Amino acid sequence: MTTIAFLGLGNMGNPMAANLVKAGHAVLGFDLVAENLTIATGNGVTVVADAAEAVKQAEVVITMLPAGKHVLSVYESVAALAAPGTLFIDSSTIDVESARKAHAIAAAAGMASVDAPVSGGTVGAAAGTLTFMAGGATEAFSRAEPILKPMAGRIVHCGGPGAGQAAKICNNMILGISMIGVCEAFALGEKLGLSHQALFDVASTSSGQCWSINTYCPVPGPVPTSPANRDYKPGFAAALMLKDLKLAQQAAQAAGAVTPLGAEAAQLYALFEAQGHGGTDFSGIIRFLRGDAA
Amino acid sequence: MTTIAFLGLGNMGNPMAANLVKAGHAVLGFDLVAENLTIATGNGVTVVADAAEAVKQAEVVITMLPAGKHVLSVYESVAALAAPGTLFIDSSTIDVESARKAHAIAAAAGMASVDAPVSGGTVGAAAGTLTFMAGGATEAFSRAEPILKPMAGRIVHCGGPGAGQAAKICNNMILGISMIGVCEAFALGEKLGLSHQALFDVASTSSGQCWSINTYCPVPGPVPTSPANRDYKPGFAAALMLKDLKLAQQAAQAAGAVTPLGAEAAQLYALFEAQGHGGTDFSGIIRFLRGDAA
Amino acid sequence: MTTIAFLGLGNMGNPMAANLVKAGHAVLGFDLVAENLTIATGNGVTVVADAAEAVKQAEVVITMLPAGKHVLSVYESVAALAAPGTLFIDSSTIDVESARKAHAIAAAAGMASVDAPVSGGTVGAAAGTLTFMAGGATEAFSRAEPILKPMAGRIVHCGGPGAGQAAKICNNMILGISMIGVCEAFALGEKLGLSHQALFDVASTSSGQCWSINTYCPVPGPVPTSPANRDYKPGFAAALMLKDLKLAQQAAQAAGAVTPLGAEAAQLYALFEAQGHGGTDFSGIIRFLRGDAA
Amino acid sequence: MTTIAFLGLGNMGNPMAANLVKAGHAVLGFDLVAENLTIATGNGVTVVADAAEAVKQAEVVITMLPAGKHVLSVYESVAALAAPGTLFIDSSTIDVESARKAHAIAAAAGMASVDAPVSGGTVGAAAGTLTFMAGGATEAFSRAEPILKPMAGRIVHCGGPGAGQAAKICNNMILGISMIGVCEAFALGEKLGLSHQALFDVASTSSGQCWSINTYCPVPGPVPTSPANRDYKPGFAAALMLKDLKLAQQAAQAAGAVTPLGAEAAQLYALFEAQGHGGTDFSGIIRFLRGDAA
Repeated sequence: MTTIAFLGLGNMGNPMAANLVKAGHAVLGFDLVAENLTIATGNGVTVVADAAEAVKQAEVVITMLPAGKHVLSVYESVAALAAPGTLFIDSSTIDVESARKAHAIAAAAGMASVDAPVSGGTVGAAAGTLTFMAGGATEAFSRAEPILKPMAGRIVHCGGPGAGQAAKICNNMILGISMIGVCEAFALGEKLGLSHQALFDVASTSSGQCWSINTYCPVPGPVPTSPANRDYKPGFAAALMLKDLKLAQQAAQAAGAVTPLGAEAAQLYALFEAQGHGGTDFSGIIRFLRGDAA
Repeated sequence: MTTIAFLGLGNMGNPMAANLVKAGHAVLGFDLVAENLTIATGNGVTVVADAAEAVKQAEVVITMLPAGKHVLSVYESVAALAAPGTLFIDSSTIDVESARKAHAIAAAAGMASVDAPVSGGTVGAAAGTLTFMAGGATEAFSRAEPILKPMAGRIVHCGGPGAGQAAKICNNMILGISMIGVCEAFALGEKLGLSHQALFDVASTSSGQCWSINTYCPVPGPVPTSPANRDYKPGFAAALMLKDLKLAQQAAQAAGAVTPLGAEAAQLYALFEAQGHGGTDFSGIIRFLRGDAA
Repeated sequence: MTTIAFLGLGNMGNPMAANLVKAGHAVLGFDLVAENLTIATGNGVTVVADAAEAVKQAEVVITMLPAGKHVLSVYESVAALAAPGTLFIDSSTIDVESARKAHAIAAAAGMASVDAPVSGGTVGAAAGTLTFMAGGATEAFSRAEPILKPMAGRIVHCGGPGAGQAAKICNNMILGISMIGVCEAFALGEKLGLSHQALFDVASTSSGQCWSINTYCPVPGPVPTSPANRDYKPGFAAALMLKDLKLAQQAAQAAGAVTPLGAEAAQLYALFEAQGHGGTDFSGIIRFLRGDAA
Repeated sequence: MTTIAFLGLGNMGNPMAANLVKAGHAVLGFDLVAENLTIATGNGVTVVADAAEAVKQAEVVITMLPAGKHVLSVYESVAALAAPGTLFIDSSTIDVESARKAHAIAAAAGMASVDAPVSGGTVGAAAGTLTFMAGGATEAFSRAEPILKPMAGRIVHCGGPGAGQAAKICNNMILGISMIGVCEAFALGEKLGLSHQALFDVASTSSGQCWSINTYCPVPGPVPTSPANRDYKPGFAAALMLKDLKLAQQAAQAAGAVTPLGAEAAQLYALFEAQGHGGTDFSGIIRFLRGDAA
């Protein structure tokens, strides 16, 4: 049993913390939203007065926050309060630069740290089947691995500080691009009189195969579990895909990488969101391409 | 045993015809290039004086030509010379509109017809493992299926006239887009200090998975058989991917479909070709994105 | 006075023909739509039974039709009926390839020919201030120039057969791109708290200056005559801009030119049209970029 | 006569400071590069030991630095050393967010401030004909105006803090987009057999007209003073255009504006730079589009 501070108990954080409680850990939780704390209490989390109180008592600190500035603000205010050698795990999806700064703050305060963003969404968080993409020193990762296990389907060590964030945005950039590509193909097929099933049968078994068609098909029918079969209720909301694509663009600009389709995909999801569809599953962008979403 | 006229004995046509010969068919072949005829003769094809002579004697006519205009020109000049009810199979990759016109010419001459473009490249043609995407009436398809078998790994009936071409360009548009997307992700990962293997391990097993990374990985190492391991010797040349992306754009414009990433992918392959790399494998576009290819 | 056959009396053709009548020419008109003929009669055009009847009597034949196939169909059916040496002027906006075919048909029939698409819209057609971009032999152009004059503000000889169409699509591709660019700048400026007038004052007088901002400003205020001041009532409809951008893409693909922003502009106008805004002025795409148009 | 601290004496800063000296001001200069200081001394600037020394004696502080972080670092270290009410003018081209932070730092230290980025390049800096786009309170602007005058062809007050930077990136985004658009049009025209002069004659006098064609034509001939006539020696280097396009993308992402052509233009200039052409004039991207630049 480990004493874990869990900071950020939103839609993702709360079910993750609940799985840590179920695994027998003592979880001290904090969040700025009162309602989230009520849910946390119901899940067996011990709610404390503020982040500092949680951190002071913890052997491991996990953060699950919206953006880099929140993570840095927490690290700056509480990292020094922890016992030396405390392990800081940041599971937020944030920009690579901020992730590296967070590692540096932790290191300067004598702490171990891992960036470990997740994929799998609220469903994976509840089921304890998230994929964790981790960055940090090998020793820190080794300590993090057993802690993450009750929340994880899979844990990959991607490299040094920031590598987890880097892997996540690279993966999700591929995902955003391939989803739009698949949607364009279905939209084109429709205009050419090609049935959804025929295109699915061809592409899902040949060189067009990808997660976006085989597992998450953006038209109803071929894959019965995909959001297309429930009117594009997410799943993975378009606004979250846009967030990840923007992080990828930010990283690409800063690092000098050229990503023309990634840039274009970010623009298309931004248009989709601007028209009021940020809450739709990201596969719903097929309706925008068809003109249905207006 | 069937008597088959095979028109167009280039890099694809010759090995395809050879497999028909091996399967015991009588193959009458014609091509405008003398050298191709020499190869065909060596493979057991009976070379004839012109397309008309082959067609007059054939029960099945197969065409494997560069573009729609060539197919239409052959159909216009020889379809009427065939015995009524002869089956015409066009395995060229051409625009959907021309494919439909070819069907109409065949039908007007009292012939059965199938459009059946392939994927799998020269390797698949030699091995007899091509994927055929077929369009046409059910009866015509039923007749075509056993003829195609010695050349095929897989035969899919995609719908009515032109549906084979439609399925192929939709599939290959997904492929072109996802390949560039994967290349952008590796190029970005490199700048962020993420190893090729780490990105491969994450993406190939999660939502970024696609044929372009899992089977045809555009960086050397993770997938030893991919062209990246042999300096991007094709495989599937960039110029052919550009051809397919242009066909998709042509179809999209004519049909009124919106395909922004397909359009952008076509432009990027056009730039890659303009810089002298049309003969490079299409996964080599990663070098262009990095600035290595200049 | 010249006897002129005018084929195609729509929104553009009718006011153009009217200006020829006013200039003292005998105009024989034909159109498939009865209502257009009624308007033509009111303008002093002599309506005839069909295209052939008009062409047989004419010294000059002017066509103003929707697309290349219509022009070719007319040229194929009536060019040979004209008196040898008759001058054929096609003022339709069509693809370069069809324009060249039309010249070839005319030449084969012993006729002189000029492609002479226009810019200036229905307002310019009514006012007789259209810009004509002409392609064809110098002699043919010299004969066309005085005929075009009553309809023209400006007449430019751009080169040989098809050069008029080429110049028009190149110009309009610049226009479509720069209009979207200006709209993006205003949309960005709005989010940054920059007033429309301040951005106009800077850009219209420095390196951002272009027709799309200086003359046709896509936000209300700075240029009182622009469609933005009348709720984006055209002017030049988005659907017509899309048509021209598609012609440019078609020509670029056929000729092997790379036009990434032209391709993207075509996709954006296609999205705008797909969402039901094809009848809006093309400067109204700013509302789409903002998310207002949905 | 005013005592002016000038911090940042590079290719732009030195000729600007020289014009202030010529106008009779006492200019105290500092730069980290020794060579720049030698030039400054030659121009009549009084070189001092560090930024602090210059600022302590100055009535006006002008900064001309590469990026936001440099400006913020200077403001943070020296703003408080100035006499209360000193006027800070930042003429660097930096991101809007940093510009606003710089204003805030100045205000907190009791100083007046103006952001005043320029266009016109090294030629305009030497000639004293720069355009200044200024943001800040009216009173601060009124004080800045006479100081800027000896360096300026034109001074525009664009609005409150950051409005100068906002106006500059909006203007330059239009410029980058329209330049690529014009280059695409010439590249397409070439393939269609349209002469440079014919396209220039049409577009520069109709709806395609823009600074990028009328003043800075990217092919040799039509505008003899444009960089195309001297093998694309800048002028305005592609790397600087890329910098401005990236600032625009950064601002657009942060502010939630959608700028698809701006994003694509940034990617194209990034590709151009990745291939080793960042030092070429930005109009030289026509060679990249043609495949000449590889």
